[in-house]
Amino acid sequence: MIVDIINKKRLGEELSYKELDTIFNGYLNGEVADYQMSALLMAICINGMSDEETFALTKIFIDSGEILDFDELGVLVDKHSTGGIGDKVTLVIAPIVAACGCSVVKMSGRGLGYTGGTIDKLESIEGFRTDLTDEEIYEQVKKIGIVITGQTKDLAPMDKLIYALRDVTATVSSIPLIASSIMSKKIAGGADKILLDVKVGKGALISNKEDAEKFCELAIKIGKIYHREVRTKISDMNIPLGYAIGNSVEVLEAIDILQGKERDNYLVDLCYDLASEMISMGKGISKEEALALVDKSIEKGYAYQKFLELVKMQGGDLDKIKVSKKEKYIVSHKSGIINGIDALELGKLAVALGAGRSSKDEKIDHTVGIRLHYLVGEEVQKGATLATVYVNERLKIPKSRHIFDIQKKIN
Amino acid sequence: MIVDIINKKRLGEELSYKELDTIFNGYLNGEVADYQMSALLMAICINGMSDEETFALTKIFIDSGEILDFDELGVLVDKHSTGGIGDKVTLVIAPIVAACGCSVVKMSGRGLGYTGGTIDKLESIEGFRTDLTDEEIYEQVKKIGIVITGQTKDLAPMDKLIYALRDVTATVSSIPLIASSIMSKKIAGGADKILLDVKVGKGALISNKEDAEKFCELAIKIGKIYHREVRTKISDMNIPLGYAIGNSVEVLEAIDILQGKERDNYLVDLCYDLASEMISMGKGISKEEALALVDKSIEKGYAYQKFLELVKMQGGDLDKIKVSKKEKYIVSHKSGIINGIDALELGKLAVALGAGRSSKDEKIDHTVGIRLHYLVGEEVQKGATLATVYVNERLKIPKSRHIFDIQKKIN
Repeated sequence: MIVDIINKKRLGEELSYKELDTIFNGYLNGEVADYQMSALLMAICINGMSDEETFALTKIFIDSGEILDFDELGVLVDKHSTGGIGDKVTLVIAPIVAACGCSVVKMSGRGLGYTGGTIDKLESIEGFRTDLTDEEIYEQVKKIGIVITGQTKDLAPMDKLIYALRDVTATVSSIPLIASSIMSKKIAGGADKILLDVKVGKGALISNKEDAEKFCELAIKIGKIYHREVRTKISDMNIPLGYAIGNSVEVLEAIDILQGKERDNYLVDLCYDLASEMISMGKGISKEEALALVDKSIEKGYAYQKFLELVKMQGGDLDKIKVSKKEKYIVSHKSGIINGIDALELGKLAVALGAGRSSKDEKIDHTVGIRLHYLVGEEVQKGATLATVYVNERLKIPKSRHIFDIQKKIN
Repeated sequence: MIVDIINKKRLGEELSYKELDTIFNGYLNGEVADYQMSALLMAICINGMSDEETFALTKIFIDSGEILDFDELGVLVDKHSTGGIGDKVTLVIAPIVAACGCSVVKMSGRGLGYTGGTIDKLESIEGFRTDLTDEEIYEQVKKIGIVITGQTKDLAPMDKLIYALRDVTATVSSIPLIASSIMSKKIAGGADKILLDVKVGKGALISNKEDAEKFCELAIKIGKIYHREVRTKISDMNIPLGYAIGNSVEVLEAIDILQGKERDNYLVDLCYDLASEMISMGKGISKEEALALVDKSIEKGYAYQKFLELVKMQGGDLDKIKVSKKEKYIVSHKSGIINGIDALELGKLAVALGAGRSSKDEKIDHTVGIRLHYLVGEEVQKGATLATVYVNERLKIPKSRHIFDIQKKIN
């Protein structure tokens, strides 16, 4: 029976809701073996799934756990990023959006592979709790309009189980599986309006623009079924987002942006754009009107105030955020224009320093990281410090010569 | 690393010998998990393998265990069938070939699914040993020129492990995997000349003629690398082979053929054809000359004598072969011509009776089975007994109306 279902997908045929339900719930109940599920996942990766199958799987994922309901609190906006190097967007835009009057309940993840996780970053603030209960989430949103916490245990537990298996069987890169996974969590999490920040690039979950567009289309269709408005933004992941890569260093950069100290770069533009998209959805206003609100929230300090409220409410102490005092430097060996900064190589360096984890149970060091001094397009002189690397006592800084691509200036 | 190898095959790329060796030997050593191997096997099933990859995998399978060497005993001929319903060909042709002076060491398997296994059939002869050691095999071939035994534990153990996983993950149907599996066992088993009896049909390992031809081509190429002559014969598996389906009933039918009592039907023709092909290879003579030897071995009783020698030497007592005395009958509900007999349905009936197993550890009943009274093309009258079903006390005979396809005779 189970073998027949796997065989059908091997042959590229469409599985019915009942068949998908049998095998996926069988897996959750321990009746279907790991090796059978991984064979099915590989067949899905290669042969694909129809829209109907993707809708069915999303429903199966949602129904595997609790479904949160914040209807009493009004319209809830949420945002999901498929992950980038130096991606501290959530830390910046959640406070902005909340400061503009839209309630935000953001359930975030931890870093795995070369991309960091919002939860890890927040935990570099001493005392900051990321394991709020359903009741605490509800009370906090009601009180201050913003929560950033880890995904609760009972939210789409089947997706969690399947994702762990996909990660070790080379079955992560499947658009229908990615769409089911992300959308089931967002829908079960109670969001009314969902913004998807889709990163495309080498080493990203989605590696090309065509797949990114397919993913967006599918996510919008899934949203329609559950009456959730979904908007999408596809952006480049080949360059790092901003100056900081790590944990505490990224929180500090987010604070700089919230305080209006950092402006006019790719990251700030992306944050303003995504924040105004969320506000436009949440308030039902135009993006231009929303952008004006974003600007004001920064100018007047509302957004930063909201961030401080959030940190305080979740038990964090910003005075105690630590960056390692042991610094190393990456120095430019030639003069010229920075043509590219390899995000993937930066991610690898961050993991090597201890800022990320290469397996699920690894401990991370919140104090290490990298701070770039130049972004792409800027001119540097030979001998200039390209980046400061905050290292741990125990760690040597690995070779990192492939991070910066500097081209001689043509006069 | 392992995930990267799986990913490469997911993308349809070619794996190197080193990559295949890493993942398959890693699996044998317990370093690669079941769920990773099954994901790889599914990717191979869907995306295929190049000839080079198939050669590499065959070598890895062979090298995973002992390699038998019977060179001192002269040319050894072997035959492998991809399995059919009522397939007692080995029981008939091994004694014929040995009686004609070619040494035969046949390592056979047990039945799984709807096709029976030669080892199970032989075990319906009380006392018949099918677990000979390497030394016993060697001594017996030297003495009487024939052995039929189970595959020794140390022969291509990796193939055994992989096959068990393929069976439960819908990854059996892959021509390169089938070719690697069969050829590695034959080559490690020490055969010099190999005849492949390839069955094609619904429910067979290979379901269409195109795939069967691809398999034959690949097997011949693998044989060349190891200096083994390989000949192939593709035949139909949609009809049962002969009158008997079960264990003891099939041994009795084989004896009838060896005694020259059963002639001129599809099974007998196939046996004569395959036997003369093996003798032609073993003795380096033409097929016509070989066929004359086959005829003579039957006429003069040499083949049957060789069978009796085999049974005696391996400890069996032919007087004690038992067929259940409890008989049921399948009766024709109309008059007409038998247009078809569904082999797969007969196989299912045999398993339901207890003659086969649906899981690896199931015990089988050697005394139950089916004996057809008519073959395809024969005319029957309404009320005629189409088949006798030998049942066990505990078992009811299941509905079996779809076995016979009888068409009204057009006058």
